[in-house]
Amino acid sequence: MHVHTLPLRENRQAVTLTTYLIDDSKEFQTGVKRPLIVLVPGGGYLNVSDREGEPIALKFMAQGYHVAIIRYTTYLLEDTNPPVTRAQKVWPDALYDLAEAMIQLQNHADEWLIDTDKIVMAGFSAGGHLALSFAVHRNKSLILDQYEDRANAFNLSGLILGYPVTDYTLMEEKIQKINDQELTNFWRFSNRGLFGVSEPTREQLALMSPVKDIDETIPPIFIWHTVDDGLVFPENSLRVAEKMSELKRPYELYMFEEGVHGLSLADHTSASYPGHINEPVQVWFSQALKWLKRHGC
Amino acid sequence: MHVHTLPLRENRQAVTLTTYLIDDSKEFQTGVKRPLIVLVPGGGYLNVSDREGEPIALKFMAQGYHVAIIRYTTYLLEDTNPPVTRAQKVWPDALYDLAEAMIQLQNHADEWLIDTDKIVMAGFSAGGHLALSFAVHRNKSLILDQYEDRANAFNLSGLILGYPVTDYTLMEEKIQKINDQELTNFWRFSNRGLFGVSEPTREQLALMSPVKDIDETIPPIFIWHTVDDGLVFPENSLRVAEKMSELKRPYELYMFEEGVHGLSLADHTSASYPGHINEPVQVWFSQALKWLKRHGC
Amino acid sequence: MHVHTLPLRENRQAVTLTTYLIDDSKEFQTGVKRPLIVLVPGGGYLNVSDREGEPIALKFMAQGYHVAIIRYTTYLLEDTNPPVTRAQKVWPDALYDLAEAMIQLQNHADEWLIDTDKIVMAGFSAGGHLALSFAVHRNKSLILDQYEDRANAFNLSGLILGYPVTDYTLMEEKIQKINDQELTNFWRFSNRGLFGVSEPTREQLALMSPVKDIDETIPPIFIWHTVDDGLVFPENSLRVAEKMSELKRPYELYMFEEGVHGLSLADHTSASYPGHINEPVQVWFSQALKWLKRHGC
Amino acid sequence: MHVHTLPLRENRQAVTLTTYLIDDSKEFQTGVKRPLIVLVPGGGYLNVSDREGEPIALKFMAQGYHVAIIRYTTYLLEDTNPPVTRAQKVWPDALYDLAEAMIQLQNHADEWLIDTDKIVMAGFSAGGHLALSFAVHRNKSLILDQYEDRANAFNLSGLILGYPVTDYTLMEEKIQKINDQELTNFWRFSNRGLFGVSEPTREQLALMSPVKDIDETIPPIFIWHTVDDGLVFPENSLRVAEKMSELKRPYELYMFEEGVHGLSLADHTSASYPGHINEPVQVWFSQALKWLKRHGC
Repeated sequence: MHVHTLPLRENRQAVTLTTYLIDDSKEFQTGVKRPLIVLVPGGGYLNVSDREGEPIALKFMAQGYHVAIIRYTTYLLEDTNPPVTRAQKVWPDALYDLAEAMIQLQNHADEWLIDTDKIVMAGFSAGGHLALSFAVHRNKSLILDQYEDRANAFNLSGLILGYPVTDYTLMEEKIQKINDQELTNFWRFSNRGLFGVSEPTREQLALMSPVKDIDETIPPIFIWHTVDDGLVFPENSLRVAEKMSELKRPYELYMFEEGVHGLSLADHTSASYPGHINEPVQVWFSQALKWLKRHGC
Repeated sequence: MHVHTLPLRENRQAVTLTTYLIDDSKEFQTGVKRPLIVLVPGGGYLNVSDREGEPIALKFMAQGYHVAIIRYTTYLLEDTNPPVTRAQKVWPDALYDLAEAMIQLQNHADEWLIDTDKIVMAGFSAGGHLALSFAVHRNKSLILDQYEDRANAFNLSGLILGYPVTDYTLMEEKIQKINDQELTNFWRFSNRGLFGVSEPTREQLALMSPVKDIDETIPPIFIWHTVDDGLVFPENSLRVAEKMSELKRPYELYMFEEGVHGLSLADHTSASYPGHINEPVQVWFSQALKWLKRHGC
Repeated sequence: MHVHTLPLRENRQAVTLTTYLIDDSKEFQTGVKRPLIVLVPGGGYLNVSDREGEPIALKFMAQGYHVAIIRYTTYLLEDTNPPVTRAQKVWPDALYDLAEAMIQLQNHADEWLIDTDKIVMAGFSAGGHLALSFAVHRNKSLILDQYEDRANAFNLSGLILGYPVTDYTLMEEKIQKINDQELTNFWRFSNRGLFGVSEPTREQLALMSPVKDIDETIPPIFIWHTVDDGLVFPENSLRVAEKMSELKRPYELYMFEEGVHGLSLADHTSASYPGHINEPVQVWFSQALKWLKRHGC
Repeated sequence: MHVHTLPLRENRQAVTLTTYLIDDSKEFQTGVKRPLIVLVPGGGYLNVSDREGEPIALKFMAQGYHVAIIRYTTYLLEDTNPPVTRAQKVWPDALYDLAEAMIQLQNHADEWLIDTDKIVMAGFSAGGHLALSFAVHRNKSLILDQYEDRANAFNLSGLILGYPVTDYTLMEEKIQKINDQELTNFWRFSNRGLFGVSEPTREQLALMSPVKDIDETIPPIFIWHTVDDGLVFPENSLRVAEKMSELKRPYELYMFEEGVHGLSLADHTSASYPGHINEPVQVWFSQALKWLKRHGC
């Protein structure tokens, strides 16, 4: 296996593409191109969580996939107290980071033995928001105006979304209703990073709600959430399901009754503390593998 | 094990309660009361499907549960061509059949070693509609007016719903929109059995849509559906999830991307033909077991 | 499902065949003949353990098998203190009980929808000894002298053996070596029931060691044991494997590092106490299912 | 994750230690030392098979283990036709390669965050022979005469052996009995590499049969084999089980009825051709994980 980290932006060293490539053996499966999982970890657009990176990469590699992890532009430069934050908002730079990463993967596909007809993006939490945003904008002006001649690099055979933010309008309504100070503070701060303001307008919220932009060109989606997620509300995933059913697009949805936000693999390899280990939730991964196989990946 | 069938109505010999009770051994677990799964198979209110009866009963028994299967009042008396149908509609008789069954189970609980604090109802398709209807009406006038002194028999610790009808208003709207003659005919015929008319009014449809009646007293729900179910649309289950989230009630939802209506266990034991075998869907059963354990059952 | 108990001997009411037959539905899989698992529980030839009966039967039924449980002649008439024992030794009566049961199953095969080309016997502990003894003697004089015209009823497509006694010579040697009073007393008492004497001669021990009689006509064997079984030593199973390898006959063997004697399914459904629940050992059952499928059962 | 390859011998560039180390994150499980699996692939002492290297490494890493793969001294320098072979036999150099690797791992344990109390060696086929040989000789003169001051680096908490050669005396007897020209030729050629002569004496064969040298100091063993392995006979594993039972040492043994030699993981990630995919055999890996956990690794 080769692990290699490429910079994605000249002046932001934290913005990178790390490729985990299975060795090509002279002895077996020689020269076979492999499907690729592109991981987009979460972190509230404040940082990029390791917990949704390498542990998930290793699980997919163990099943024969190449993996790439994207570390995109985030609001925190240093997670000190008080934190050091970026001067500008992260959007749409974070989105373009994904485009840049996809272009790199396309450019090196032959060298890295990537089957470019089998690229699936997997995002978690804010990374789920970013991945779904990339999927809905990949064939629209927000991305194509910047990358019109590279649209061929943006094909996706599927999306895997774990506890994603998909609807900021919904988020805002529920946060106001719940009226919990700590929760509100977190979202105000995260909003400052993403929108540039802590209280975005209804128009801004709607523009940043990719569930509203899902259309017939959306790839198949595998999506999961815990019902009692207190940070990113489960309706974010239910609404994706409704929209997909409305459009008669294929999807698979798992809503697990119990579990905190940010479970990642929900096993010991990605856990910070015991609450991150949740046996019933672990099934998402093996079910995602079956779903990938059904889609030829 | 003892299997025994009790009649539930004097003059309808097809309306029965069949109990599958694990033997009480003198050697181990002697005298232990067991949780009970009450199965309500589907069949479009036309008949009661064997495919959603014994095969599922056996899977639960293999895990240490007692099981009871309810065969309730349906529209077909004989499934001949042309079919022989009942003179009257089945509602609310079918609902009262469930109440009668629950009363029998309560009456015999000590004798049959049933733990009455651990009774879970599991319904499939029309049986899911009936089970959810029972759950929402069990503490309301529709049932209590008939059985006011037996409300204690109607406790449920959980509901398991497989591809249920939960919203007849939704069903009617989608059937009109799809405008497929065969599908329409099926629903018209089924409606005649359930509502007494093939084209119920909006008021009738709404009254028979238990998702609208879910309130804070609903037990935890485990629910699953296939997204491309062409007979009972997946929105029936999505709407239960939304309502439960809105009420902050616990639920677990699985929407499988692919699979025909009526999968039951989705394995060879309940299959009529190869399309009834669907490996990714089989996980609903083992996940339901974990969910039951979490709820102490 | 129908559960029915038949007497196997006129004057011994505890000696029975209990059939667990899956219902034949008019709706699906109508008239299909099913493979049959014939269970032979253990109990040191003193009694017949419930723990190796119905819980295992239910697991197989949940997979679509018919099951029959044989309760054979044992030494204890009543398990009181002091116990009431039979006047005569149980051998070869217990063996003939199995023959009688097989004949009953053959006689009723059409009525019960049993596929007589797919009958597999599964024995545990002393029941494993009895099942293996039946398998090695089913085509030899000990059985055929009694049942010569019914040899057609004795076909077996496979044997499943859980922690069986297969070699009494080995047992005797190890018991002497270990020199533990309680263990020795148990075996002396059990021997009195089986051999009629508490200290059988070397010739008697050899005659009752079915591993020595395995020949090319033995059906495929699936066998498992725990390595630290303190009552029936694991070498009983290792020697079957060696003999089978020597004869180039198919077998599958699992030796689990840790676990008390008598684990049955090793899960909560067959457990008397927590030590009977042993997660790594549970895999024997799902592996046995795959093995049965490979042998067409 | 970091993958790094170290040379183990100055003048043999193919003899290496490749470490697969999980990244230490600043965010979670920071500074935690991990158990280590040391993989010793097979190849008949002719080469070192990739099929028993990285695919297995990835499976263990996905479960949170560090992994190291040892590529040891083998007979073929180039696998051309005719092959280019080493002038000298590989023994005991190959054994010392393992010692060298263990010393490197010990030297870097703090830097690499290896928990040196949780090192398990896993060998396959000839690599199983080499791993078992290392385990039996690690505290005896053959190794200690060379590495007396580094005995502390040779602790093993367990051994995992897949279809190993453990008894060359047995191999020779069976090969003579089978009398198949192709099989005989393979072993003669492999012997030339290992022993330096194609027909070793009985004394030489016995010395190279590590099953005979197992004593009370052997770590727990997890061992598996397929019964119809036509290259390394299954008795090699049965004899380890017998020896371990005789010594009352812990082990777990799986003998799978069907499967060619060299299955590795028996899934698509390690397969050269469809016969290398064998679903029942795949269970060895998940069972090995449970076994490792029981031993605290």
